[in-house]
Amino acid sequence: MNYNFLIIGGDKRISMLAEKLKRDGNNVKTYANKVEEIEELDKLEDVCKTNYDIVISSMPLTKDKINVYTPLSEKIISIEELKKIAKDKILITGDDILKDEATTILNTIPTAEGAIQIAMEETNYTLHNSKALVLGFGRVGKILCNKLKGIGMEVYAEARKSTDLAWIKAYGYKEIPIEKLKENICKMDVVFNTIPYKILDKSTLILMSKETLIIDLASSPGGVDYEIAEKLGIKAILASALPGKVAPDSASDYIKEYVYRKILYT
Amino acid sequence: MNYNFLIIGGDKRISMLAEKLKRDGNNVKTYANKVEEIEELDKLEDVCKTNYDIVISSMPLTKDKINVYTPLSEKIISIEELKKIAKDKILITGDDILKDEATTILNTIPTAEGAIQIAMEETNYTLHNSKALVLGFGRVGKILCNKLKGIGMEVYAEARKSTDLAWIKAYGYKEIPIEKLKENICKMDVVFNTIPYKILDKSTLILMSKETLIIDLASSPGGVDYEIAEKLGIKAILASALPGKVAPDSASDYIKEYVYRKILYT
Amino acid sequence: MNYNFLIIGGDKRISMLAEKLKRDGNNVKTYANKVEEIEELDKLEDVCKTNYDIVISSMPLTKDKINVYTPLSEKIISIEELKKIAKDKILITGDDILKDEATTILNTIPTAEGAIQIAMEETNYTLHNSKALVLGFGRVGKILCNKLKGIGMEVYAEARKSTDLAWIKAYGYKEIPIEKLKENICKMDVVFNTIPYKILDKSTLILMSKETLIIDLASSPGGVDYEIAEKLGIKAILASALPGKVAPDSASDYIKEYVYRKILYT
Amino acid sequence: MNYNFLIIGGDKRISMLAEKLKRDGNNVKTYANKVEEIEELDKLEDVCKTNYDIVISSMPLTKDKINVYTPLSEKIISIEELKKIAKDKILITGDDILKDEATTILNTIPTAEGAIQIAMEETNYTLHNSKALVLGFGRVGKILCNKLKGIGMEVYAEARKSTDLAWIKAYGYKEIPIEKLKENICKMDVVFNTIPYKILDKSTLILMSKETLIIDLASSPGGVDYEIAEKLGIKAILASALPGKVAPDSASDYIKEYVYRKILYT
Repeated sequence: MNYNFLIIGGDKRISMLAEKLKRDGNNVKTYANKVEEIEELDKLEDVCKTNYDIVISSMPLTKDKINVYTPLSEKIISIEELKKIAKDKILITGDDILKDEATTILNTIPTAEGAIQIAMEETNYTLHNSKALVLGFGRVGKILCNKLKGIGMEVYAEARKSTDLAWIKAYGYKEIPIEKLKENICKMDVVFNTIPYKILDKSTLILMSKETLIIDLASSPGGVDYEIAEKLGIKAILASALPGKVAPDSASDYIKEYVYRKILYT
Repeated sequence: MNYNFLIIGGDKRISMLAEKLKRDGNNVKTYANKVEEIEELDKLEDVCKTNYDIVISSMPLTKDKINVYTPLSEKIISIEELKKIAKDKILITGDDILKDEATTILNTIPTAEGAIQIAMEETNYTLHNSKALVLGFGRVGKILCNKLKGIGMEVYAEARKSTDLAWIKAYGYKEIPIEKLKENICKMDVVFNTIPYKILDKSTLILMSKETLIIDLASSPGGVDYEIAEKLGIKAILASALPGKVAPDSASDYIKEYVYRKILYT
Repeated sequence: MNYNFLIIGGDKRISMLAEKLKRDGNNVKTYANKVEEIEELDKLEDVCKTNYDIVISSMPLTKDKINVYTPLSEKIISIEELKKIAKDKILITGDDILKDEATTILNTIPTAEGAIQIAMEETNYTLHNSKALVLGFGRVGKILCNKLKGIGMEVYAEARKSTDLAWIKAYGYKEIPIEKLKENICKMDVVFNTIPYKILDKSTLILMSKETLIIDLASSPGGVDYEIAEKLGIKAILASALPGKVAPDSASDYIKEYVYRKILYT
Repeated sequence: MNYNFLIIGGDKRISMLAEKLKRDGNNVKTYANKVEEIEELDKLEDVCKTNYDIVISSMPLTKDKINVYTPLSEKIISIEELKKIAKDKILITGDDILKDEATTILNTIPTAEGAIQIAMEETNYTLHNSKALVLGFGRVGKILCNKLKGIGMEVYAEARKSTDLAWIKAYGYKEIPIEKLKENICKMDVVFNTIPYKILDKSTLILMSKETLIIDLASSPGGVDYEIAEKLGIKAILASALPGKVAPDSASDYIKEYVYRKILYT
């Protein structure tokens, strides 16, 4: 590979991305993101003296809707300025990456591993031979079930649609149609939620054992009535954004794959 | 369960279905399909004296576009007559079942097992530690890869879309983008095709080892240039309609599930 | 590798071994075993004009206790003559190989695969989600359980010793102590026996379902009272010497590994 | 079950054991170990007024070779006194349990899970698709390999004996004979050691990548030259006694199983 990249802002994953792009033989410069052995532009004006074809910005692009997200630098650059810099170039923003389906699929891997790590840390028994229930059989549900079975758990998966229930069966897990959730939830050791609405509401929580651990992987505010859970003495953990936390190195690999794919098809 | 079924025509899977429906406590009568301990109507006219809510016909519904498929009986009944009989009743034809997605997903299980059985029968080495390549990562491809890995093969899967390639990676198989198929196919021991177009054409076949076995699961006429394969001395087996052949018992279970689901939501 | 081999007698596995040794760069000659592109000595006397360091004979060494087993040739050579020929050379007989523990362990792979192939051929339902019981948790039992689970069966394993029961649990199968065999056997779909004594005697067989398939992997006469099984209408299959039957190619690989190991440590 | 137990000393695992024995319907009293809802004898003299058949002491029995290990109590009781109390009764000490092979096998489960948890915590990439090397294929090695493969790692296992190497192959891992360790170790992401001698000495450590993580499961002082590892910048973690740390609940289950088995066969 031999491209000229300009990296603007971003957190540790973007720094690791810069390093990896360089290691692949590309020319890489940064602005508002410091990486060892990579030249960082000092002033925004220096950009015009720089040779670059592809601009990569932060992930997420912004937190305040005005400036690019630059947590590793004191420099400030607005989205407007970014757009000017990227004019007539390929611009890849964190938001493009977050919307890319292939990257989302790959991110299920660190999400599943992170969820298992939390389950191991929060229980005083082995996951082996314990009962896991996964709520929802979307992307995360699919890979999580696969790994829970691999680690030796007895895996139940809940879904609504007959096709998802068929997949659950075909992969060798035990299927629980949503209408049978309430009669089954009492026997579970760990419940992993992947559904982004309050599926674990009061009417379900009161049927659960106090010993059951809930790990909620749905994006904030999650799928658990946390107040009720606490009153009932059921431990529920909201675990979001796991890829960046448990495996930033792998996360930056997936971003790199996206970047090359994007360049190839632009 | 307590329904009144009238089964009309059909092959062994439909006979097994009739038995299972009866064992579940339903009332079952047949016409043009003989099942032990189940009453078979002698004449079509007897239907009017019969109490039934649900009519189930053969799978496929017909082979000649005129009469219901009745391979187990000498009786004849036209599709027209079937429709009259089913008027104001629930009618479930084999064609509905074939179009049902959940049933199609469940049928990937016997398809995958049947493919493995053929691979075992046709090789004189163990599948364990041998290399399998699955062409296509649709329904059959997904479950076949899962089972091939379970039996101990080194599993490669080919796909075109970046999302499928991401899934392949997330499930722990080795992904082969279509554009790298030709450079990788020479090292495979068994190639399973699930893609319904001639992906294994001359230009690819000539790159393969004569020792490689091809098992073609795509619906007829399959995805292999069989003439060229034969000339090159590569063994290629077209294996279609496996569920009915290797596991009619399971196939009739899936049909039963469909029937109950259909009744529930009608 | 560069050794001078003289192969004497043997079946197809030995022929394949000869080919593979040659392909590795060794000099190979045969007597009483014909292999394409390998020189076969015409007369026993020619041996003295031949340069060889290692003599490999048939597997088993003999069937009549007098002559070497030469099923692929009309030539005859006695064990006495073999010993003379092998004087001051390394002699590897089939009987050494059969006694080698590492080879026995490797042979559990084709044995397990062969057992699964038979189970697939003899059932009209999918193994997936069916119940398998493995009697005995020795070498074959261990690898068979591993593969049965991989293919999607619910795996039960029976053992006598508390240590074996602990292993069964640690590998994630369901353990059945011998004293609970009788109360559990009725629910099994396929029973695989690996124990070389009549564990499936009348008192146990009468508790089994007629639908259950028995696959007996114990060396002849096996572990089933076949007469009683037949009377009860239970299908029982004695499947012995599977490696040579289902995977002679892999079997010859294991023999080759043994040969090199033996040479290395002699 | 209905036995009369007297529990003397011990840590949390023994407390949990007491609870579980009581929940099973047994009569349980303790001395020098406080458990909710279980009567604790106040003075050693009260023992004579107590009805008990089985005495269970701490694990390990003692740390100072004089008194029973009583970390949860301020009471003191010597081994001599324990023996008097247990005269003509069944006495089960922690040391018996530690020597029991079945319990040791079961303890490989929490050991393997604990090792995986550490690997997840100490890496910033996913274990999925990373390379694990397990040194030694004894009890812990066997179950650890099984779970590492289940979680999606590429598993290599090192052994010395040809039989262990055959097992490694039969289970579908990649075998590394000890003499090929040095040429292979550089490519590993995580190395798990189970061998109780300094296998990772200077001559091997210098061949490793600084990025490789070592998790040492061998009993203290472990199998790594820690001083050299530190100098080379290789992270090495000595992780011992994992069952009691990561899964005391499961550990007390295994002890309970042992206790019942011991009673049954005494």
